[in-house]
Amino acid sequence: MIKIGILGYGNLGKGVEAAIAKNEDLSLTAVYTRRAPESIQTASGAAVKSIADLESGNEDIDVLIICSGSATDLPEQTPKFAALYNVIDSFDTHANIPTHFAKVDKAAQQAGKIGIISCGWDPGMFSINRVYSMSVMPDGEAYTFWGRGVSQGHSDAVRRIAGVKDCRQYTVPVPAALEAVRSGSNPELTTRQKHTRECFVVAEEGADLARIENEIKTMPNYFADYDTTVHFIDEAEMKAKHSTLPHGGSVIYSGTSSEGTKHVIEYSLKLDSNPEFTGSVLAAYARAAYRLNQKGISGAKTVLDIAPADISPLSGEELRKHYL
Amino acid sequence: MIKIGILGYGNLGKGVEAAIAKNEDLSLTAVYTRRAPESIQTASGAAVKSIADLESGNEDIDVLIICSGSATDLPEQTPKFAALYNVIDSFDTHANIPTHFAKVDKAAQQAGKIGIISCGWDPGMFSINRVYSMSVMPDGEAYTFWGRGVSQGHSDAVRRIAGVKDCRQYTVPVPAALEAVRSGSNPELTTRQKHTRECFVVAEEGADLARIENEIKTMPNYFADYDTTVHFIDEAEMKAKHSTLPHGGSVIYSGTSSEGTKHVIEYSLKLDSNPEFTGSVLAAYARAAYRLNQKGISGAKTVLDIAPADISPLSGEELRKHYL
Repeated sequence: MIKIGILGYGNLGKGVEAAIAKNEDLSLTAVYTRRAPESIQTASGAAVKSIADLESGNEDIDVLIICSGSATDLPEQTPKFAALYNVIDSFDTHANIPTHFAKVDKAAQQAGKIGIISCGWDPGMFSINRVYSMSVMPDGEAYTFWGRGVSQGHSDAVRRIAGVKDCRQYTVPVPAALEAVRSGSNPELTTRQKHTRECFVVAEEGADLARIENEIKTMPNYFADYDTTVHFIDEAEMKAKHSTLPHGGSVIYSGTSSEGTKHVIEYSLKLDSNPEFTGSVLAAYARAAYRLNQKGISGAKTVLDIAPADISPLSGEELRKHYL
Repeated sequence: MIKIGILGYGNLGKGVEAAIAKNEDLSLTAVYTRRAPESIQTASGAAVKSIADLESGNEDIDVLIICSGSATDLPEQTPKFAALYNVIDSFDTHANIPTHFAKVDKAAQQAGKIGIISCGWDPGMFSINRVYSMSVMPDGEAYTFWGRGVSQGHSDAVRRIAGVKDCRQYTVPVPAALEAVRSGSNPELTTRQKHTRECFVVAEEGADLARIENEIKTMPNYFADYDTTVHFIDEAEMKAKHSTLPHGGSVIYSGTSSEGTKHVIEYSLKLDSNPEFTGSVLAAYARAAYRLNQKGISGAKTVLDIAPADISPLSGEELRKHYL
């Protein structure tokens, strides 16, 4: 059994907990939290301990799965705990990956541990598919579409507008863009042509709805470059229709092997729950972190450095016999 | 530059040659053949040599890509040449993979070489996707659909019937089965429910068409378990409409991360040319064979043992910065 610790018990931590229950070779030792441990009851009944308990380096875990946010927590926590345990995170601020990798690599190398960063579906399974496709077919182009699904970052951005009580923002790929890419025509697409954004907003009583709608649609980075639709709904409808976190998307690669000979490769996900799927990916790569470290390998790794067989519970013989 | 030799100059060998031209770090040293070398003119102008020249072990190549048939050639050639060079093949007789792996492993280990077997799209990219999906989501099921595309084995089987001059057999997934699987309902599907088969046949003048059609539809293993349609056409139509070898298909995985929470993962290929795509996969994994051997690794490997970064021409830094 591979003993797992989870740091952070939000949506993602709960997703990892659910995934561990589906893997016979993984066991959950404890959930670690910055909150008062006694205030948390885990779904699986696993023990809850303070994050401070991790600092000794003596917790009886093989891999620590760090389920914190990318903005401020992971840049600090992942290098810190990579000096003490094998760790894995889902760091998803694409532009800062090289810096994060370097910090985790240094700490993990010194400690003889493995630190897998940026694991999930994007970065994660989508990255893997971009790299496989462009390696097999160098003369081509990768297109990534997200959705239809809830973007938590965009939902939070709308919630910060005065007069907004709650929001759920869906990212939606434009069907005509998807079709053009799937046809193999390698179109050039602007940000606006690829995705639209749809907001379901609960406003405070008496709020100026026209102002809120305008503030959303003109918000730089988040909405200004997109065609955005805003629907004002009441709290009951929010709860009834928008309480889950579905997501998904596609990596579509279109390339040429010789003059006029085209190939289209598509990897797509339809996920009922973004945090449960991300948690499932983290659990599988926690297995790889443990195995690589058992072989004496240390340092930072990403999903691109890890072979498919290393995340499977099955042996090489079983995989070759039944799944190759 | 990684120096590549190609053994066999049929459709697949030509596909590898086309792929090498698309990869700046790969160069084609020579094509090796059992035919008279002077009878072959390569598309790229590469030298053509006799297969006998390989036997010294002194040819100046880093990797030999063996483009022969799985029935009788690869079981003999891949272990033989793995004792002399890094090799790679597309062995696709699924049931015999463990035996083939063991023979190549023994020869390659003794010689300190790498032998990658069963590389292409199925086995190959489809296998990778089956293993990723079931590792991430163990509670689920993988469905593989092939087509619409030309099956060369089935086309050959029809050509062996008396009175048949030529045949092209298309394997076609049943749309209702695809839809049922994509919905996440995890249906149980029989062979007949998953695929139909469509044959375009040129008959000899005066041949008994009803007998030919009956022999096709009742042929054990190849057609008896499928709903098959037979179209008799003339040679001009065969040449005009059926001279290419398109193929493709999908691996669809449908699984559950917790009670009632479903996820559907689909990997699909639409290929203008089956041999050119398979050749492109072989070329990318030839790069991995060379690199692994340079690191001192030897023995038999499959696509499941090789990390995505190992088949990419880009460095780890470039991949993390731009593609993760």
